[in-house]
Amino acid sequence: MALKVVALVGGVGGAKLADGLARLLPPDNLTVVVNTADDFKHLGLHISPDLDTVIYTLAGLAHPQRGWGRADESWNFLETLRTLGGPDWFQLGDKDLALHIERTRRLARGETLSQITANLASRLGVKPRVLPMSDDPVRTVVLTEDGELPFQTYFVARRCEPRVRGFRFEGAEHARPAPGVLEALREADWVVLGPSNPWVSLDPILAVPGLREEVRARAVCGVSPILGGRALKGPAAKMFAELGVQPSALAVAGHYADLLQLFAIDELDRSLAAEIEALGVQTLVIDIRMPDAAARARVARCLLDSMAERVQGEGVV
Amino acid sequence: MALKVVALVGGVGGAKLADGLARLLPPDNLTVVVNTADDFKHLGLHISPDLDTVIYTLAGLAHPQRGWGRADESWNFLETLRTLGGPDWFQLGDKDLALHIERTRRLARGETLSQITANLASRLGVKPRVLPMSDDPVRTVVLTEDGELPFQTYFVARRCEPRVRGFRFEGAEHARPAPGVLEALREADWVVLGPSNPWVSLDPILAVPGLREEVRARAVCGVSPILGGRALKGPAAKMFAELGVQPSALAVAGHYADLLQLFAIDELDRSLAAEIEALGVQTLVIDIRMPDAAARARVARCLLDSMAERVQGEGVV
Repeated sequence: MALKVVALVGGVGGAKLADGLARLLPPDNLTVVVNTADDFKHLGLHISPDLDTVIYTLAGLAHPQRGWGRADESWNFLETLRTLGGPDWFQLGDKDLALHIERTRRLARGETLSQITANLASRLGVKPRVLPMSDDPVRTVVLTEDGELPFQTYFVARRCEPRVRGFRFEGAEHARPAPGVLEALREADWVVLGPSNPWVSLDPILAVPGLREEVRARAVCGVSPILGGRALKGPAAKMFAELGVQPSALAVAGHYADLLQLFAIDELDRSLAAEIEALGVQTLVIDIRMPDAAARARVARCLLDSMAERVQGEGVV
Repeated sequence: MALKVVALVGGVGGAKLADGLARLLPPDNLTVVVNTADDFKHLGLHISPDLDTVIYTLAGLAHPQRGWGRADESWNFLETLRTLGGPDWFQLGDKDLALHIERTRRLARGETLSQITANLASRLGVKPRVLPMSDDPVRTVVLTEDGELPFQTYFVARRCEPRVRGFRFEGAEHARPAPGVLEALREADWVVLGPSNPWVSLDPILAVPGLREEVRARAVCGVSPILGGRALKGPAAKMFAELGVQPSALAVAGHYADLLQLFAIDELDRSLAAEIEALGVQTLVIDIRMPDAAARARVARCLLDSMAERVQGEGVV
């Protein structure tokens, strides 16, 4: 019997791990719960960057390097928008635009984000269940030395330059987990925290009332988004440093010590294993980089084997 | 001294004549007032089909045959939208989409349609002034044997099939002419009624309160949209027939007999000249087809010469 797994993820790294898991688990055994606190309105469109990255990655449509958008894309819309003097700072490919426009149209008709996500993912051939963390709006606000910035302003327009002092997840206190999220967690053998940014990808998910408690009640494993002191992608390491914490796999394990039973770190970080274990978190030392599909499957295989062992052998669950 | 001309137009035919006039008149001497009663919301976007056709035509970007959209276009958005199960009945090219999205964005910010039109036209290199007939919403409703249909439903979705019983221009009674329209008419030596559909392109413009009176006070010439009993493009002839009027250049002249001093008809319709003149409308018998840029300029040249003659010679103005 395959394990039942719920993966909590943000964009790129989490999407890759979800793809690895999807290559090994029966579709019914995997639910991917995605951060929506990066969602924003642009050109009147509802854009869900992490949901899009997860859907495109699971559909095999994602750009292999860029970390956003589709591989086979054209840019005629954006080039024309630039000619017309429109705001062109957010990259929108012609095909990608169809997803945003269709999502926005259906939201305006009263469909929920989770209904729309399920339908669009299925139309693109995605097999595992993909759920937004919530159908209610939660928005990450980055508290910086330049004041409070909406996440996309901080991330895209300001290129993560302003020093970070903290984060706020606007609307989180009133958000309800999307239909299916709590149910999937309750049925899960393991919850996997993707190698996603703890501050702005996983914390917002765990800030949805009820979610953190449900995760804590399960067996939880994670994969470090930091390797050799640097984030595999994005500003996670910079954020740790600016918040006064030495960025490392240990720092991430510490951030989630109350949740984690098992944490996969890179071979480069083998020397941190003892300190992580001292937090009460078992370590799995592997090559955590996922440059291609084979690597995604390999990392997922290591995790699943380790989880299965612990379910049968050590009685963590 | 070049004449000052205001052209009232719908889409294709009117846009071609406006382009012919723009090739001959100094930009300051030509104002093009465009029907906006075909405007509609689609996928959350404000679409102005006639304004778009006029702008693309004057910018030299229009598709030479199709009568809508751009010549050099790609369709990746629409193909992806179809994959996602979105409504794909209205043709939206990737570049065309930028115009709709940018217009919609600026409308949402509180800019008026006429401000936006002026700016977008100028960015695409259009020299003459292009004005929507009104910044207020006016919507053509087609009264058919199948009930009332919004114009785009009748025109695109139903392919003009239901028999027409009449038309209603919703909102017209409260609409104000867009800023600059009445001023341009007051300064005009001649008003030109484009070879546009009388029922659904020109009548809505003339239904904006104050506009018809101002046009009637000027010297007015027109170009027939009907040639040998058939419309050059679109459902004009079919509409005349369903409303019980034999479709012909004579029928169009009769429709506007209270406004017209001069009416250009095709050589094919020479036999109708006497009957049109009996309505008190002088005729100009020329080749009114405009298959290419040279033909547009030729038709415009015939009109302008004839108008100039009448300004100087016969004292119509």
